[in-house]
Amino acid sequence: MTEELRDPRRRPTISDVASRAGVSKGAVSRTFNGGKGISAGTMARIRAAAAELNWTPSSAARAVGGGPAKAVGMVLRRPAELLELDPFFPAFLAGVESALTSVGYAAVLRFVSDTATERACYEQLIGERRVDGFLLTDLRHRDPRFEWLSRLEARVVVAGSPGRGCTFPWVSTGGADKIRDLTRHLIAQGHRTIAHVAGPPTLRHARRRRQLWEETLAEAGLEPGPVVTGDFTAEGGARATHELLDGSPRPTAVFYANDLMAIAGLSVIAERGIRVPDDMAVAGFDDIVLSSYVTPALTTVRCDYRRMGQIATQTLLAQLRNEGVPQQITIGGELRLRRSTGA
Amino acid sequence: MTEELRDPRRRPTISDVASRAGVSKGAVSRTFNGGKGISAGTMARIRAAAAELNWTPSSAARAVGGGPAKAVGMVLRRPAELLELDPFFPAFLAGVESALTSVGYAAVLRFVSDTATERACYEQLIGERRVDGFLLTDLRHRDPRFEWLSRLEARVVVAGSPGRGCTFPWVSTGGADKIRDLTRHLIAQGHRTIAHVAGPPTLRHARRRRQLWEETLAEAGLEPGPVVTGDFTAEGGARATHELLDGSPRPTAVFYANDLMAIAGLSVIAERGIRVPDDMAVAGFDDIVLSSYVTPALTTVRCDYRRMGQIATQTLLAQLRNEGVPQQITIGGELRLRRSTGA
Repeated sequence: MTEELRDPRRRPTISDVASRAGVSKGAVSRTFNGGKGISAGTMARIRAAAAELNWTPSSAARAVGGGPAKAVGMVLRRPAELLELDPFFPAFLAGVESALTSVGYAAVLRFVSDTATERACYEQLIGERRVDGFLLTDLRHRDPRFEWLSRLEARVVVAGSPGRGCTFPWVSTGGADKIRDLTRHLIAQGHRTIAHVAGPPTLRHARRRRQLWEETLAEAGLEPGPVVTGDFTAEGGARATHELLDGSPRPTAVFYANDLMAIAGLSVIAERGIRVPDDMAVAGFDDIVLSSYVTPALTTVRCDYRRMGQIATQTLLAQLRNEGVPQQITIGGELRLRRSTGA
Repeated sequence: MTEELRDPRRRPTISDVASRAGVSKGAVSRTFNGGKGISAGTMARIRAAAAELNWTPSSAARAVGGGPAKAVGMVLRRPAELLELDPFFPAFLAGVESALTSVGYAAVLRFVSDTATERACYEQLIGERRVDGFLLTDLRHRDPRFEWLSRLEARVVVAGSPGRGCTFPWVSTGGADKIRDLTRHLIAQGHRTIAHVAGPPTLRHARRRRQLWEETLAEAGLEPGPVVTGDFTAEGGARATHELLDGSPRPTAVFYANDLMAIAGLSVIAERGIRVPDDMAVAGFDDIVLSSYVTPALTTVRCDYRRMGQIATQTLLAQLRNEGVPQQITIGGELRLRRSTGA
């Protein structure tokens, strides 16, 4: 009935997809290039037809031939504020830089604010051969990108721990596991009410940091102390600290999900005349450069995000050269004990 | 003699350049695409032939036609460490993001470590139509990029104060001028020996910060205090502070060329038992988010780098739409007086 059945070995073409979906070739092309002027319903029909025929913009591009784009794509959905303040991104990008410089590849960044644009963006970058593969960061709870990118047959390396359902190689930092050691250290110092200032629960790494803190307390037979959800910004950390200090029971130790919130917390605690570490212990996560320069110096967990960016990029480049790559690489993390916890 | 003289209105082609330089078309192409396998002498001859004929890869690309690349290029020559630690870049990129998101353009980043690769990179990105224009940051003393990019007929917006010899529009921050107010504030507090921890003199903005501090002291009839050159990193700031404290005369106030060095300096000063601001005043530059959260809070100059990135990008996009744009835009800066200078 349809053309592709006549010779099952023939590669599907954009015409096959168009005829199966009952649309023009232009509509198929636009669907995979930003979706301008195509209704959501038509896009869904076209995507279904493409999936049934196992046609992807990247297989089309490969059929056309041509050299590599010599570019690695990153589609970022973090708000501008977090791009600016969070230490992960510049450090990770510095690592990406160190891997790309020697081979003369570019990093192509796209910034998006909603799911539909995000998906169209991946399709467009691959479909127009603007990139050879992607680095995935800021993993979300039940991240839909794994499925999108599998369908696109894209080359991908994931930065972070993806959990189940990810078929791409990933590079994660062992830093999170050091949260167990950090929590045990606070318990060993005699603390029994240990609070947590969490990150946004939509982010996998924020959930993971909270979970490890909670598990370690449970293993020691302790109830988790109060939890306030912050947003990873300094201002959010200050606000969360006021809330903890006004609440009851007042904790004797606070583990903040990142250093930016912890350093802002130190300042709020000092303003209130509470001494760190004598009256209250404070710990963070990330080991940003200023953590050893605040007073008192901040106990934290060091994650080498630059190295993570470098290894993730090198792994993607190896994949693009069709070399075998490991499914999982873990970069070590380190507990940094400093004055803020009485170390 | 040569073909282009037959009809002076005819656009020069790559063949014209090849024949004038006595090389193959492939050699011309390679010269403007990374220079692989072409000797420096041959590249110079080919570039001279192209300049004489007024041929550029971008005019060639325009002749070929095709839509816009929908991408803005940034070729970065800063070392990975500075990319990671300096607050300018992530803030600027966050501004670039906010301008690109709504129009669906990408940011294409290339990282280079030497002048030859840098130049080839600009030529390649334009020649292969990977970008529609460039944002220029990290302006250098006698920056060669203005001439390269003029020859390439590239669309460019400069972030920073370019000084003479720049024909491209630029967006600068008025922050540097606030250094006058900052220095006058220190003088008004009674300080007579005011030191400076400078940034690398190869960077225009580092030179400018030092110059404004020096001029303001001279206007007040004061000798400039000791100067130590740092590298804009926290570690460099700590080292410079030790040097100042060991030297003679010991300053009663220090103006650091950025906040990262100043915050590290605060920590070194506290370790030595010197009280800020009672025994010594400290000021920085940038107003990074943590400057209001260190103890004592840091007096500094706020530069809105995110807004700078946004305006620079919007200006470039307007240029790409062939709209008229102002030659110069200045974003305001603000003096932020805080506890570290007794304010």
